Amino acid sequence: MAAAESKPPAGAAAARRLARSCWSAFWDYETPKVIVVRNRQLGVVYRVVQLLILLYFVWYVFIVQKSYQDRETGPESSVITKVKGITSSEHKVWDVEEYVKPPEGGSVFSIITRIEATPSQAQGTCPESTRVTNATCHSDEDCVAGELDMLGNGVRTGRCVPYYHGDSKTCEVFGWCPVEDGASVSQFLGKMAPNFTILIKNSIHYPKFQFSKGNIEMRKDGYLKHCLFDEASHLYCPIFRLGFIVEQAGENFTELARTGGVIGVIINWDCDLDLPASNCNPKYSFRRLDPKHTPASSGYNFRFAKYYMINGSTTRTLIKAYGIRIDVIVHGQGSFLCDWILLTFMNKNKVYSHKKFDKMVDTPDRGAGPGPGASAPPQQDSTLTDPRGLAQL
Amino acid sequence: MAAAESKPPAGAAAARRLARSCWSAFWDYETPKVIVVRNRQLGVVYRVVQLLILLYFVWYVFIVQKSYQDRETGPESSVITKVKGITSSEHKVWDVEEYVKPPEGGSVFSIITRIEATPSQAQGTCPESTRVTNATCHSDEDCVAGELDMLGNGVRTGRCVPYYHGDSKTCEVFGWCPVEDGASVSQFLGKMAPNFTILIKNSIHYPKFQFSKGNIEMRKDGYLKHCLFDEASHLYCPIFRLGFIVEQAGENFTELARTGGVIGVIINWDCDLDLPASNCNPKYSFRRLDPKHTPASSGYNFRFAKYYMINGSTTRTLIKAYGIRIDVIVHGQGSFLCDWILLTFMNKNKVYSHKKFDKMVDTPDRGAGPGPGASAPPQQDSTLTDPRGLAQL
Amino acid sequence: MAAAESKPPAGAAAARRLARSCWSAFWDYETPKVIVVRNRQLGVVYRVVQLLILLYFVWYVFIVQKSYQDRETGPESSVITKVKGITSSEHKVWDVEEYVKPPEGGSVFSIITRIEATPSQAQGTCPESTRVTNATCHSDEDCVAGELDMLGNGVRTGRCVPYYHGDSKTCEVFGWCPVEDGASVSQFLGKMAPNFTILIKNSIHYPKFQFSKGNIEMRKDGYLKHCLFDEASHLYCPIFRLGFIVEQAGENFTELARTGGVIGVIINWDCDLDLPASNCNPKYSFRRLDPKHTPASSGYNFRFAKYYMINGSTTRTLIKAYGIRIDVIVHGQGSFLCDWILLTFMNKNKVYSHKKFDKMVDTPDRGAGPGPGASAPPQQDSTLTDPRGLAQL
Repeated sequence: MAAAESKPPAGAAAARRLARSCWSAFWDYETPKVIVVRNRQLGVVYRVVQLLILLYFVWYVFIVQKSYQDRETGPESSVITKVKGITSSEHKVWDVEEYVKPPEGGSVFSIITRIEATPSQAQGTCPESTRVTNATCHSDEDCVAGELDMLGNGVRTGRCVPYYHGDSKTCEVFGWCPVEDGASVSQFLGKMAPNFTILIKNSIHYPKFQFSKGNIEMRKDGYLKHCLFDEASHLYCPIFRLGFIVEQAGENFTELARTGGVIGVIINWDCDLDLPASNCNPKYSFRRLDPKHTPASSGYNFRFAKYYMINGSTTRTLIKAYGIRIDVIVHGQGSFLCDWILLTFMNKNKVYSHKKFDKMVDTPDRGAGPGPGASAPPQQDSTLTDPRGLAQL
Repeated sequence: MAAAESKPPAGAAAARRLARSCWSAFWDYETPKVIVVRNRQLGVVYRVVQLLILLYFVWYVFIVQKSYQDRETGPESSVITKVKGITSSEHKVWDVEEYVKPPEGGSVFSIITRIEATPSQAQGTCPESTRVTNATCHSDEDCVAGELDMLGNGVRTGRCVPYYHGDSKTCEVFGWCPVEDGASVSQFLGKMAPNFTILIKNSIHYPKFQFSKGNIEMRKDGYLKHCLFDEASHLYCPIFRLGFIVEQAGENFTELARTGGVIGVIINWDCDLDLPASNCNPKYSFRRLDPKHTPASSGYNFRFAKYYMINGSTTRTLIKAYGIRIDVIVHGQGSFLCDWILLTFMNKNKVYSHKKFDKMVDTPDRGAGPGPGASAPPQQDSTLTDPRGLAQL
Repeated sequence: MAAAESKPPAGAAAARRLARSCWSAFWDYETPKVIVVRNRQLGVVYRVVQLLILLYFVWYVFIVQKSYQDRETGPESSVITKVKGITSSEHKVWDVEEYVKPPEGGSVFSIITRIEATPSQAQGTCPESTRVTNATCHSDEDCVAGELDMLGNGVRTGRCVPYYHGDSKTCEVFGWCPVEDGASVSQFLGKMAPNFTILIKNSIHYPKFQFSKGNIEMRKDGYLKHCLFDEASHLYCPIFRLGFIVEQAGENFTELARTGGVIGVIINWDCDLDLPASNCNPKYSFRRLDPKHTPASSGYNFRFAKYYMINGSTTRTLIKAYGIRIDVIVHGQGSFLCDWILLTFMNKNKVYSHKKFDKMVDTPDRGAGPGPGASAPPQQDSTLTDPRGLAQL
């Protein structure tokens, strides 16, 4: 190049001309030559096809599908439940502590509606249940000592003894005695159960969009002390009568209380976050979750026991509890116009963009839409760590 | 315009002519002019490239990826479990109530295989465990009264007392006495544990596609009372031997029962809902979930206690339980040709479209494919609230 | 056709000529004719628009959004927790067994910080709490026998009796007596609670990409026995002080311990699996999950009881426990360049492709990045069933 500059020969000059013309050609504008066919029929078909393609994009892709939005499924969710109510059986009053298991108020809990109690069980020997295969016997030869039936109640001692009632005989076993089938007493707790109330506090968070919301109204006037859920008028009062839940799931309460069953309370948070936050509301639905038509192993029950120490030996009351298990399932999809300039900022300056997002969500414009939270005054103490929606509502 | 209509000047006439010709031109059909190069080599390259692009779309995008389908991950899921079996240690028979914690039959539960029991603990004073840092002492000066070691067993009283056994001395503490290390008795429950059976009822629901299915066969002949899971022949009998689960996870049962561990039972519902419902089947896999190679804090154990009142004072039996925790994890992706005409109807008329979908899913065509549910007669009482798949199987 | 072959007429010859020319034309190369406009301004605009489109794809679609990658949200996750620590109230020392409920070490558990105990409750009659609506009375006429208030403590007997303290009178009820409000004793356990440590073992698995990883370091030197979590220096030591968690969530510990509350520990695994596995690290965040500004039903508490048998009658100690519930929530999105040749192999030959993936993940290239796991030697015994990440770290 240096040589070429000092004394340009004919070849170099040609190359330079070529480069210059290439450079010039690079800045030319090229457009395809078209033929115009002056045929009205063909033209109409052509324009109609163009219109259909345009409609597909504008109407279906943009308006119906909102494909321009970024989506996030499966929000972070937290569920806190609390059951209230009291019921009575023949000789006893039952409170929440006794009929709700486990007591911690998580998303899955059972409300016991019927029990079969076997009191005063202790390790010892007694006749095996007649329900166990090969348990009925005529003489000691029918019972093999040391045998352990997986579906039985204990280790066989090898003796054949009279059953608890009736005149049949079964093999004697060593285990928790007497066995359940021989000595259990049934009690029905479900009389007042349809009136139990269940408070379901749920808060969700879409981490991608930094958006949080709760399903509970923040009012100072004791509103939550006496309200009941209603989809139209009390959407943000998540207190449900157990009878309401069972009815919404299309089940018969008496039947369900007798056999037990699992009901799902599904909370759906499908939120278009381009709209004001007040448009993002929970939708509740209720569904029976266990297979009720299965002949074998139908319904829902579980066993637990209370252990006592009497005169130095361990005794227990075994309880087979039939009940209604409530599974609170939270689902949802958040969608948001993914402003890429904003997103780029986020990647570079996390804190800055969070604040920007916060402002967007917290502005009166977004909060003051026609929603249940609209009347609440903006919280002064709302911070980054405070789930925004919860503070707003 | 009104003026123009009353007396059109020359300019207006020209404008009208222009508008008319524009309108006429709008309906012209335009197509690019092409040059045809009669070169066989170039033509072959051109067509091969075209073919590759076509193949990419037809084969990869449509057949392999099925990009035309709408997808939904993370179905709503409900899990109900029930363990059956009985086992014995040296002097005792253990039933389900004692070795399964928690008893409610949820998706996460532990089967206790070994315990270290510390009976007769009460609030009082006793020697600290030698495992606690700085617990061993020579004289009272080594023990600071009122000190509370976070990893110890109580508040130090300031005295140095002889240990439970041996001739060492440790600081005395106030707390639950005697401490675990000094007085615990070990019992192994795992002898019969590989034969325990675990029934896992699972039902899923894809809300976007209104599709539900369960993992359990609906037969009237007591099939579920004696079947065991087999991937090939008994896919819809979700009853697993504990030994089978541990073996499938690649673990040694005896070792696992001794140290404890967490096994995941993963149920995968990857469903192409364009195919008949009988093609949507669960896939089971089993995996050890806790880090077994960690030297510190390996295995799985937890502590619980049984509280007794003896002569007016509270006494407890502390139990350190080693066991196999089973985590049932449900995963899945449903895909479906998202018919947008249908979807549009859904947006306008929810109930109508639900019924339409229902019909689609329930038609004999979808149900009568070569699947396990094919033999079941269509349920007459299947309603919208009934998980369809469950009723079908 | 057979006839045409035997004696080709003129029409057939023409058809054959046409077919041959069509075939020949098929292999022609067609390209649109273009017009070159030698206008520098137009050319510059044309090239700038081209550049913008190119930039959008290269920079935004490929580099920022990584749209070429396949994504998977919601990994399979398993959480094992263990709390350690000891605390004391006025007359008692509390250990983990007493203040952690439930004890099994799952992803949701409560640490009790304050209790209100009502000892010696038995089924009997006693005055109703004054907090219950219409419970205060002047004479027996004010109390309806047999009435059961859903928010009360028992069935009314119809008598009006003096309250536990003070000179008011309330209706007598049959139920668990004495009622909570009349006889409960408060105890604060939270004194040492900020120093409790919580070990959170978490392992995730992206089934689509066959990728697993855990959040715990695999070192042989007892590192986990004395480390504490620190985002910068101890990322793979998931042991948290309870005080640290509460502080990170922006809450006041004393206040929270008094009223109770729910704190979420959110573990985020956003992993670009095209990078080495050591770049896929958990991110922890902490957030208060219950609505703390709700005037009604604020805080978190639940009731449980210990049952005793005294002289043949059942007695219980009812405990209203206020505490800090920890919800461990695992979230994440894995993304991976979806090599379709590989994927196709996977569909045809599952085992082969699994091994191939395994090798890809386990190569020193992927493991030896600048991450915490880099120093660990490759495990010789890592198998398919072993969560790879756990073995690696």
